[in-house]
Amino acid sequence: MANTLSKLNQDFPILNQTVNDEQLVYLDNAATAQRPNQVIEALTHFYQTDNANVHRGVHTLAERATADYEEARRKLQAFINAPEPEEVIFTKGCTDGLNLVASTYGEANIKAGDEIVISIMEHHSNLIPWQQLAIRKHATLKYIHLTDDGELDLDETAQLITDKTKIVAVAHASNVMGTVNPVKQLAALAHQHGAIFVGDGAQSVPHMKVDVQDLDVDFYAFSGHKMMGPTGIGVLYGKRELLEAMPPYQFGGEMIGFVHQFDSTWAELPYKFEAGTQNIAGAVGLGAAADYLTNIGMDQVQAHEQAIVNYLLPKLEAIDGVTVYGPQDPAKHTGVIAFNLNDLHPHDVATALDMEGVAVRAGHHCAQPLMEYLGLTATARASFYLYNTQADADRLLEALQETKEFFNHGTSETK
Amino acid sequence: MANTLSKLNQDFPILNQTVNDEQLVYLDNAATAQRPNQVIEALTHFYQTDNANVHRGVHTLAERATADYEEARRKLQAFINAPEPEEVIFTKGCTDGLNLVASTYGEANIKAGDEIVISIMEHHSNLIPWQQLAIRKHATLKYIHLTDDGELDLDETAQLITDKTKIVAVAHASNVMGTVNPVKQLAALAHQHGAIFVGDGAQSVPHMKVDVQDLDVDFYAFSGHKMMGPTGIGVLYGKRELLEAMPPYQFGGEMIGFVHQFDSTWAELPYKFEAGTQNIAGAVGLGAAADYLTNIGMDQVQAHEQAIVNYLLPKLEAIDGVTVYGPQDPAKHTGVIAFNLNDLHPHDVATALDMEGVAVRAGHHCAQPLMEYLGLTATARASFYLYNTQADADRLLEALQETKEFFNHGTSETK
Repeated sequence: MANTLSKLNQDFPILNQTVNDEQLVYLDNAATAQRPNQVIEALTHFYQTDNANVHRGVHTLAERATADYEEARRKLQAFINAPEPEEVIFTKGCTDGLNLVASTYGEANIKAGDEIVISIMEHHSNLIPWQQLAIRKHATLKYIHLTDDGELDLDETAQLITDKTKIVAVAHASNVMGTVNPVKQLAALAHQHGAIFVGDGAQSVPHMKVDVQDLDVDFYAFSGHKMMGPTGIGVLYGKRELLEAMPPYQFGGEMIGFVHQFDSTWAELPYKFEAGTQNIAGAVGLGAAADYLTNIGMDQVQAHEQAIVNYLLPKLEAIDGVTVYGPQDPAKHTGVIAFNLNDLHPHDVATALDMEGVAVRAGHHCAQPLMEYLGLTATARASFYLYNTQADADRLLEALQETKEFFNHGTSETK
Repeated sequence: MANTLSKLNQDFPILNQTVNDEQLVYLDNAATAQRPNQVIEALTHFYQTDNANVHRGVHTLAERATADYEEARRKLQAFINAPEPEEVIFTKGCTDGLNLVASTYGEANIKAGDEIVISIMEHHSNLIPWQQLAIRKHATLKYIHLTDDGELDLDETAQLITDKTKIVAVAHASNVMGTVNPVKQLAALAHQHGAIFVGDGAQSVPHMKVDVQDLDVDFYAFSGHKMMGPTGIGVLYGKRELLEAMPPYQFGGEMIGFVHQFDSTWAELPYKFEAGTQNIAGAVGLGAAADYLTNIGMDQVQAHEQAIVNYLLPKLEAIDGVTVYGPQDPAKHTGVIAFNLNDLHPHDVATALDMEGVAVRAGHHCAQPLMEYLGLTATARASFYLYNTQADADRLLEALQETKEFFNHGTSETK
């Protein structure tokens, strides 16, 4: 497998620690990634050198902070190949971006009888905003279901998206099963019927090359903290003509044209959607994260994770008692793998793995409708990133064997 | 004057730099404060040691990150003396908190004919959300105007707040004139008429002891970055019974009880209002900022700034051609002073002061209705914080003299 990235963990001091007397193996990257020194140093440098509020100041620090902030926007623009920097809105995170679209575009454009199409594999952040919009507007929410292999049922999709459809909102990659969805095809289908396509990029932008122009998505949201940026910062990409036609989401400083006592006008893009002091240092840190990933190359990142999944998935499925959910074909996976071990509760599995130093997540992964659809209440989930190695995959496999033996010991051996 | 805090600037490396070959004097603290090493180190330590996503994980890092995040909440609870940690909602900043209240409480409780009372000195973030709510609901927005000394006209206030009033929203301290408003008295007046009181604490919490129980405010919002915390984090305090009755603001992970395909239930406080991954590191950094201020003592901070204003204000007003806006009595001021010099544009004044290393802000300070009311388009604004000294005040006075002479030289001497 590709070992070109295996020396990266020197950039991540947090990985060089022991947990329960074992070397930490961090496999919870779908929840949040770790930050390299380069990102932490960008934050520190900003706070120690340039920190000021942006745009409104003419003094030197304010000018430097503004330049840093707008440079970060251009880095993110380049990272997703957005046509213009004005189409890159800084948000609090992916959830904030998706809520923004549902509350502004959705509120202004959805009426009774309209249809919104999402998938049953959506994270709550790309599900509840549309569900609640549909309830408020007496619109109809429709779900795309899955094939046995955890992929979107594209035949059903072709039936569901009709001229009644106004919004199609689907994750680019599942945060539970690692399924990569055909976003370009879905966006094209939406457009054929006059609908817009909203992409949830939380699990894709950190792990693969995303080109919003090639995908031809109308909106696309992602979080900084899952791509090694700081917490509290994210990006909403939107097509200029859509963003310009939308009302503001929040009101306050920076987003105004003129404010009178009883009416106001709004600023140009992107500021119309950036009310109040933004997470300036967070944007600078996210810019550093984009630099870090760009220097490595997103194709390299994807190939590295793919190599780990190619190695791990067959071995994981070969463990007696392990059930893996989602695509069985490693090539159809991101580095996110959901599984259960016998009928053990996934929280017990995760706790046992933690005793071996292996950090995985357990629960419904903010995807309760998916869990219900799969007939589950929860799963364990291991999720890999560029600093993980084949050795980490081996540690997971060994720890799972230990876990199995530990629980078998106390219960039936024949389970 | 009090010099007890004058050695603090060793904690603030950003202050130890030259700007335009002059030692930096940072007097733009009302826009954003600087961060001490202790806050930067708290961020770095979190990212290098404990970083994980919170609440949803059972592995060691997730448990440590959750403990760090909830400890930060309790620090902020103590800092404003909120009765319970569940009443402390982490937000993106003050603007986010005020928009949250207008969009949830306001949307649910304001109807046609209701009245909302704000003041003419409000920052746009505590003005436009109410203005737009009033427009959406066909409610009436009413403004408290000012005395000649830049204070709220309390006689007018007593007339304006009636049984038709449903919300009174006023800043605790003006971000332009430094006026401290009688929030406790205003909250009591609102309550007498069955209205709620919303306090904008952006310019007060960083600079004075704020006790939300003593003030008896219903909601109170402030930003982290103005009290030396990181950018992208703030707090909304709300009384439990009000928060519990309100619908959520954003939808996504963490804020749910159960999510079904076509309906959902919501989490308990405070999580109902914290959708998606929050600015976890930002909260930790804000907790460190609260520690830093608490260790010094907010009474000390206020006394220090008061001493500087006592020293500076008479000298500033004595400069021929300088007009100061707001209270002429230093005791009625925070460390925020708005002024103009002759008929020079404040941007030119700020640029000239920057040439002398003195950073002040110039503009409408996100308070256009106040500017219009005062018959101005803009002012310069110097704003002090605990690390500023009497020497900084002297540098401002000297630089203003230089500025005056520079511009006099090019134009009329008799201006």
